[in-house]
Amino acid sequence: MERRIDLAAMAKLNHDYARSIDEDALEAWPSFFAETCLYRITTADNHARGFEAGLIYADTRAMLEDRVKSLRIANIYERHRYRHILGMPALGEGSGPDIRCETAFVVIRIMRDGVLTVFATGKYLDRVRADSDRLVFAERIVVCDNANIDAMLALPL
Amino acid sequence: MERRIDLAAMAKLNHDYARSIDEDALEAWPSFFAETCLYRITTADNHARGFEAGLIYADTRAMLEDRVKSLRIANIYERHRYRHILGMPALGEGSGPDIRCETAFVVIRIMRDGVLTVFATGKYLDRVRADSDRLVFAERIVVCDNANIDAMLALPL
Amino acid sequence: MERRIDLAAMAKLNHDYARSIDEDALEAWPSFFAETCLYRITTADNHARGFEAGLIYADTRAMLEDRVKSLRIANIYERHRYRHILGMPALGEGSGPDIRCETAFVVIRIMRDGVLTVFATGKYLDRVRADSDRLVFAERIVVCDNANIDAMLALPL
Repeated sequence: MERRIDLAAMAKLNHDYARSIDEDALEAWPSFFAETCLYRITTADNHARGFEAGLIYADTRAMLEDRVKSLRIANIYERHRYRHILGMPALGEGSGPDIRCETAFVVIRIMRDGVLTVFATGKYLDRVRADSDRLVFAERIVVCDNANIDAMLALPL
Repeated sequence: MERRIDLAAMAKLNHDYARSIDEDALEAWPSFFAETCLYRITTADNHARGFEAGLIYADTRAMLEDRVKSLRIANIYERHRYRHILGMPALGEGSGPDIRCETAFVVIRIMRDGVLTVFATGKYLDRVRADSDRLVFAERIVVCDNANIDAMLALPL
Repeated sequence: MERRIDLAAMAKLNHDYARSIDEDALEAWPSFFAETCLYRITTADNHARGFEAGLIYADTRAMLEDRVKSLRIANIYERHRYRHILGMPALGEGSGPDIRCETAFVVIRIMRDGVLTVFATGKYLDRVRADSDRLVFAERIVVCDNANIDAMLALPL
């Protein structure tokens, strides 16, 4: 049941995760997390100050599933899509079954009228776990460089 | 004459392809395609609806060569350059000698006066073939996220 | 003391270099260069014409260290950060202990108020050296696609 967490596997996890968002397959997005997990979107300023709260916060996969359902039902956000471009994962040290990983990201937002804007930049701070035959995020903290991102968030990053 | 189509080889093909455009070596661009091929630029909306037409369409390498010649001679487009940034290739299943591949892209446009804009985002949907000692595109469908791209296209994506 | 300069090692060097800038760890930035080195920022136009001068020029690691000190003390630039996204390194031929490498980049600038702009695109033209147990830049020429970058440069690219 052991699975090695190497650079290629981590890059593929990042890629598949981003693809679920960018290709509007949001229902698959929670499946990249462990059942008990931490998903948090915060800003670089707040992260540096140690603030635990986030613009978005979930600590179970079920909460992430609820979020996707809300997005599908409410659908109040102006229709848009994202396109993620990711840097190379930097694998850190492990503690127990998990290892730390950091990956830079840039997200372009595509509005319905075709306008493209750089929507967010930042880094993923991850704790990655080999869960039987695949990798999942035990923790993914999304640290956005831009402090003004909160009002615009609908889709996950 | 067999050549393995692996992740590293595919990433290098993508990189060399983008470089021929970004570094204004357009004459090399058709050489990344098979002699009989499919090159098509379309939008995510049209692709989802199954529309076969494209903003740009070519089904032989000779047509791509003609396109480059036209660009060089006509030169009616306001001078600009592109810079591609590519995601990790996602290799799919093969059918016969070809295998499927999908790669996300973001293209920044650099105008003569130095203005940089996010020009296009999307994904390459490829059918890649090992042609004697190198890889070529039997098919490259460029699916742009932004629907308003047509009026601005001059250089290939 | 030999260390192989392969794609993974080069990608990691690029990543660590960019991270020192993006994460405001500028004091680490000069350590990526050889003691006698060349660091130059220029434009694609000037580079194509063979102009040797650069918008920023340094030929020792000590000069780079001085530059970081100036940035820290003067602090006259409007506070901002960068986020680099890098392409795949293209390793070239070696001459003696060094090998050539070229890597595309896009840099997003994050202003204090959160505005994100595509600040620079271009390519790194590197001469990379295996210096005992690590890789360093004997030469890094930053060739910016956009010609109007000079007035805005504060942080290194």
